[in-house]
Amino acid sequence: MTATGTGEPGLRERKKQATRRALQRIALELVASQGLEQVTVEQIADAADVSARTFFNYFATKEDALVATDPDAVLQIRAQLAQRPAQESPLAALRAVYVERAERLVDQSEFWRLRTQVGSTYPDLFARMIGASASLERGVAIALADRMGVDSHDPRPTLVAGIGSAARRAATYAWIDGEYKEAYATILDRTFDQLPELILDSAQPSP
Amino acid sequence: MTATGTGEPGLRERKKQATRRALQRIALELVASQGLEQVTVEQIADAADVSARTFFNYFATKEDALVATDPDAVLQIRAQLAQRPAQESPLAALRAVYVERAERLVDQSEFWRLRTQVGSTYPDLFARMIGASASLERGVAIALADRMGVDSHDPRPTLVAGIGSAARRAATYAWIDGEYKEAYATILDRTFDQLPELILDSAQPSP
Repeated sequence: MTATGTGEPGLRERKKQATRRALQRIALELVASQGLEQVTVEQIADAADVSARTFFNYFATKEDALVATDPDAVLQIRAQLAQRPAQESPLAALRAVYVERAERLVDQSEFWRLRTQVGSTYPDLFARMIGASASLERGVAIALADRMGVDSHDPRPTLVAGIGSAARRAATYAWIDGEYKEAYATILDRTFDQLPELILDSAQPSP
Repeated sequence: MTATGTGEPGLRERKKQATRRALQRIALELVASQGLEQVTVEQIADAADVSARTFFNYFATKEDALVATDPDAVLQIRAQLAQRPAQESPLAALRAVYVERAERLVDQSEFWRLRTQVGSTYPDLFARMIGASASLERGVAIALADRMGVDSHDPRPTLVAGIGSAARRAATYAWIDGEYKEAYATILDRTFDQLPELILDSAQPSP
């Protein structure tokens, strides 16, 4: 659902994304401050200045609003991967795309702080958040298989997508531990830098 | 809850693990053949020749039996990591432990086949299965931080644990795609072999 081939959405799409993101953020704020049971869809919609009907255009339940990831993320990542130089390795291309996306997200630390807080309070929601990330990772693996010109049954695209997710998780924990003081994109880039050192000695385990 | 420092459980513990695993496998079989709504805890307990009360010693709900992973896995992995040569890199040690564990699990392809089938049928259960894996990965990261002599806030143990999980996922998909014909341990070992090639070109993305 992107208006151009670059992963940049058009105006109408950006408005929808902004409403969706506002509903998610308000849902997270209300649940973080009042607790999951206390918060209703009507309350979330009111606080976002939309009707409950509009809320349900975006999410089926309040829980969905709390755990959902950007539904266009896979399409955007696919488009961004297609823009990367052909000679770049799959992991180098994925790294560049993730760091670029992280740079665009500078103003969303509060969103991720709330999401982390809600996830750590409600294990069922945390499991669903992780499940949403796993589904994104599958989509990225399929996009990488296309780029690599291999069958989606080849384990390498899955491995590259999984390494990318591991780097994002490690960077997220470091970002949280550092109380969001350093830019997430900077931490993520540095995390990717640590991969060769960690991998290189692993090829030949002692017997 | 291991009887020795090697991660090998004692007899009493092995019996409990066998009952637990039997309950899980029967729950998966019944749900795969009859559907989640139709299956009751009483039915699972009957088929396993235990009382419902015994079932509830292991799991709070039927869903828990379907999604739970081995509760001792983190302790076992920690003990196995401690047995690996000190000069081994963290990822090489983790690789050796995971391949060793996979070799012990040769007779469990049916369990994992059923679990994959149930997970692909019920998205909420799949999310919880993934959540359980994420929780295991956190435990492995903490064990690795100990081994590496670094703070658990250092992103490297998280990264190594994440790479290990990525290798396991990629190997699992390849194992399923290959219809379980090749031993999972062999596929997993080969998957780890692909890491250096995938990582080496990634350190310097093109501008």
